[in-house]
Parts: sequence; C-alpha cells; structure tokens
Amino acid sequence: MIEDKNQQRTALEKLGEFGLIDHLTKNFEINQKSTIKSIGDDAAVLDFKSKQLVVTTDLLVEHVHFDLSYVPLKHLGYKAVMVNLSDVYAMNASATQITISIAVSNRFPLEALEELYAGIETAAKIYDIDVIGGDTTSSTTGLIISITAIGEIDAKDVIYRSGAKPNDLVVVSGDIGAAYMGLQVLEREKEVFKVNPKNQPDLDHYAYIIERQLKPEARRDIIELLKKLEVKPTSMIDISDGLSSEIMHICKQSEVGVAIYENKIPLDPQVISACEEFNIDSTTIALNGGEDYELLMTISQEDFPKIKGNPNLTVIGYITEKARGMNLITRDEQSVPIIAKGWNSLENQE
Amino acid sequence: MIEDKNQQRTALEKLGEFGLIDHLTKNFEINQKSTIKSIGDDAAVLDFKSKQLVVTTDLLVEHVHFDLSYVPLKHLGYKAVMVNLSDVYAMNASATQITISIAVSNRFPLEALEELYAGIETAAKIYDIDVIGGDTTSSTTGLIISITAIGEIDAKDVIYRSGAKPNDLVVVSGDIGAAYMGLQVLEREKEVFKVNPKNQPDLDHYAYIIERQLKPEARRDIIELLKKLEVKPTSMIDISDGLSSEIMHICKQSEVGVAIYENKIPLDPQVISACEEFNIDSTTIALNGGEDYELLMTISQEDFPKIKGNPNLTVIGYITEKARGMNLITRDEQSVPIIAKGWNSLENQE
Repeated sequence: MIEDKNQQRTALEKLGEFGLIDHLTKNFEINQKSTIKSIGDDAAVLDFKSKQLVVTTDLLVEHVHFDLSYVPLKHLGYKAVMVNLSDVYAMNASATQITISIAVSNRFPLEALEELYAGIETAAKIYDIDVIGGDTTSSTTGLIISITAIGEIDAKDVIYRSGAKPNDLVVVSGDIGAAYMGLQVLEREKEVFKVNPKNQPDLDHYAYIIERQLKPEARRDIIELLKKLEVKPTSMIDISDGLSSEIMHICKQSEVGVAIYENKIPLDPQVISACEEFNIDSTTIALNGGEDYELLMTISQEDFPKIKGNPNLTVIGYITEKARGMNLITRDEQSVPIIAKGWNSLENQE
Repeated sequence: MIEDKNQQRTALEKLGEFGLIDHLTKNFEINQKSTIKSIGDDAAVLDFKSKQLVVTTDLLVEHVHFDLSYVPLKHLGYKAVMVNLSDVYAMNASATQITISIAVSNRFPLEALEELYAGIETAAKIYDIDVIGGDTTSSTTGLIISITAIGEIDAKDVIYRSGAKPNDLVVVSGDIGAAYMGLQVLEREKEVFKVNPKNQPDLDHYAYIIERQLKPEARRDIIELLKKLEVKPTSMIDISDGLSSEIMHICKQSEVGVAIYENKIPLDPQVISACEEFNIDSTTIALNGGEDYELLMTISQEDFPKIKGNPNLTVIGYITEKARGMNLITRDEQSVPIIAKGWNSLENQE
C-alpha cells in the first residue's frame, strides 16, 4: 500500500547516508533550553542544570509491532514517538529530547521515509521535544525504528513503580482496551481487502478505536492535570502491555497486593460494541489488550477528594497487603486472581 | 557457527520478555554516581549535577554491519558498546551509561544472547559504564542491536567538529586501516571454509588486524592522555567511516580546508603486508577503510611540543583556508583532492 501513495520514488542510495540524515532532519526545530548541540556531531550535548534526567528506549520492528498494509507511515512515526514519551510521563517527567534510529530496506523510497519523518516531526512539535540525533542504516528486510527519549524532572517529583502502599487507590486515566479492538477491526479489514480489494469499508463507527490504535497520544495532559490538582501519585506506570501486566509490575515492585473492580474499569462504548461484535469479553481486553498508553497510578486515600468526579481519572480498585495477592472483583462479586498475560513479542514469532 | 558453540539451547519464548530482560541483565552492576535508578521502571533516572551530557546512538544490523559466520557473539556485544563509546570520547566526555535494545529471531537460543550480553558486560566493566535500560523484542529475521550511550562533561571541555582553524595540525591516534584489512582476511577465510570446512587456517600473522576488526577498543586512554598532556584539541571526531570521510566532516563544519601527507598516515606493518597480499593500495584503505575507532583531531600549533614524539599521536597534516580545499599530498609530492567515500550502508543492499 505504501507504494501506491507515492507518485515519486527516489532511491535511498542516491542520497547516501549523510545526505539522507540531512534531508530527513532539516525541518526539525530546537526548542528546549537544555539542548546545547543537536544533530551534526559525534553526539548531542545537553545541559539539565540541577534537574534529574529520565531515559527510556523502545524498538519497533515491522511485522512484529506494526503492519504497513494498514498503518500509514506518518501515523507510525507519530506513534513511535508517543510510545517513548509515554514512558517519560509515567515517571512524572517532562519529555525534552529524542534520538531516532531507523534501519530500512531499499524497497522503501525516500518519499516513504519522508512520510515517517513527517509524523515524527508533528509529534515533536505538538509535544515540544527536540530530535537530537539518530542513526540511519539499511536492513535486509523491513523497517526497524529505535527511539530513545529523555526527560527532565526535579529529584523530588520522580514517581517510581515501587511506591504503592496498602489502602492506596488504583487510578487509571482515560479508558482502556480501545487500541486492541481497533487492531482487531484493522486486521479484519485487511482480510476483507485480500478477498475483495475494491471493497470500500465504512469504518466511521470504529473511528475512535481505530484512532487509538493508529495514532495514540501520550498523556502529558494527565501529568499537567495531576500537578494542577496537587496530587502526587505514590506509584505510576504507563499501560503499554495491558492493565494486568502493568498492575503486576506495580505490585511486584511495591511489594503489595491489589483488588481491581471489574465494573469500575473505564471502557468506551465503541470498545463494548466492538467486543460484542467480535464476541470477545471486554474485561479480558481491558486487562490484556495493551497499547493504550494511558497512565496507571496509585494515590493516597487522602487525595481522593481532589480527583473525585474528574472525567479523566477513574478509581478502579485499591492496594492491599501483599499476602492477599492480585485479585479482580467480578461483577457478581467473586474474587478471581489476576494473571498477567500482557503482550509478549517473543511468542508466536518465526 | 553460533549453533555449534552451544551445547544447550533454551528457547527464548520460555522466558517471556520480562523474564529474558531480568535474566540477561542480572549481572550488570551500577557504578556511576549519576545513575539514580537503572533498569526496572518506565525509564532510568540520572543526575548529572552541574555537568553537561552527551548522547549518541547507533544501530547495528545483521548481514549489514556484521556476519555471525565469523563474528563471535561475545565480541559483537563488546564491539557494539565500543562503537558508541567512541562517539562519546570524540566529544572529549566521560562515558557513563548505555541503553541496549535488541531484536532477535527465534533461531537464537537463550545461550546465544547470554554470549552477546557477556560481551556487553565485559565492555561495561572495563570502561566503567552502567547499563541503565533497553528493550528486547523479536525480529522476523536476524539480530538487530541498538545502543544509546550517555557521557558527562564540564561545559568548557566539550570538543566539537567545528573548531578547526587554519594552521592547526591534524593528528590521529594509533594507526588506521587495520579493521578493514582484518575484515578482508575474515571474508576470505569464510569463502575457504565454504569450500573446505575441515581447513584449519593459520591466522597468527593476521592477529592484530583481525582483533582490530572483531574487538576494537574505544580510545578512552587518548582522552585521558590529552588531559595529562594539557592539550585540548580544537576539533575532534572518531574514525568510524574512514579518514577521508571524517576529515571531510571536520572541514565542512569548521569551514576550512586540509592538507594530509600520505607518507605520514600511521599504518601497522600487518596492514602493509596484508595490502600487498590482497593487492590493494594501503593509502586507499587508510582513507576509506573505516571501523578503526581511532580519534582524529586538530590541535593548535603551539601544542605541538606537548605531543611531539608521543607514540600514540601522529601528525598527518595541517588545516588550510577553505578555498584551498581538501588535499592529499602524495609520496611523490603531488596534491590530489580527497574524495570522501566512507562506508555507505545504504548502497549495495537488497
């Protein structure tokens, strides 16, 4: 599908490696005060004065993390940045810089990479981050994107996964499960397209869940909201692999247990209807779906009045003593152990 | 060849992604004061107080950057770290932390990744750097390694590529061309092995050039030596793509020209004899070979007495006005323009 979109096809080897980097990064602006020297030397130079830094990195591999038959390259560039910024915000930090490395086979013309970088540039502009470096090389097969994100934070503000205490409330931002159901719709349309390429699918009533899959937003707004509400969570993590796997990380590192109420998990109506259509249990999707990039946090009970009624934050359970384990309280008030499946990229691959 | 070396083969999917990361990183020690929180949260947390930071990243792709039929995984892990540290030292900084991401196909058993990480661990120990994070995922084909390295430096000590001035001396550390000739020997042995797998090659008299290819060292010692000699180069870059391409970067960014003396370029006797054996011009190799990870710098003429006679540093030419261009002064005193070929991973690939 990529090939269809581009009238022009410029072979990458025409530019050479340095030419390609110059070409793709020429529009990137530098806005962060901490960026002293960006692309163009052996390394970037940064100055964070008295601030602490957070550093996180992610690798996205074609056919494993994305399928270019239905993911537009511009969206992919945007999402690749979001995946990393989400980890920075999950530390309660401000994202400031990223490096981008790509390996790409010669089946991609220059115009395809321009699309990818246009998405990266849009993300950098909206989230006010500087692209300070990277590496561009060839791959023998598809596209690989490696991003490292850097953020800054006052030492006293860092939020780890390890700070949850018994009786803390478990809070989730936004709603979850949508990105996974969006993926199911896209996968189904891909199969339909194979059989009947002329079919024009009407995806309007899946718009929200498809957007959540293709163009997620990292929740910088939640970090700002928490500051405004004067709530400092006791622990926080972003939901990339699914609620069950993320709450497991918090419980393990905080040495606590948890009770999550099934009927409190925030689901968008499109997720509920898509689950019905696909005949999948919506709680299973919420627990194991992944790629929502919402924030999962624990807050002290005394902070509850500050978040009560806020449409962006939902209390879904509470932290218990470790001995009580991790449990889901079902709609019919049964307590069942939560098993973290999450998303395991090492399974089911060649 | 990898498969032969490992009696035991543990499938990666048995550990899962989190189990794999835990397993591979359990031996990594934290030694840097600036590392506040390492692997195990959404991001690592670092504190550099009043220091500036340098950040650099590199992506290594199987079949493009390395061939596992003759590169032992342990050496590959070591070299992947060196490639990045070399960029940190080229800024005159101290390397402090790295993140490591790998994508790997299921043809690799756990034991192969343990070898790779053993090499990374050795490099981290010797060069006193902390491994603070990373990502582990599957690939549909071979092995991909993405490393981001971080270093610290006082603002006043940073050395850019852009500071060279006319009449400055051009200095190179160690000797160059060896890594490329080591590669030629290894490639030839691979062909011999295909024809006659029982052949036991005697590679003793290629030991130095093969080691330069398989297990290069980043020149931290040169950074320390320069401090001891009280020489602050006016510009510096590491030689990863070949002398001609690196000097071109300095000339371009410093807006100067250069004259390099062919007869001053430091070559190891093994490089000279291998070039004779392969019937290749040794100057061409020195100019375009790459992967030497030596440091190329320019120093003020008044610093010459401080480095004179030092076996680690060789003056190979001088900086000129930009209008005079980039020239090689040949052994017969002809001046020929230097054309930067370097190593272009985007060419000659599928």
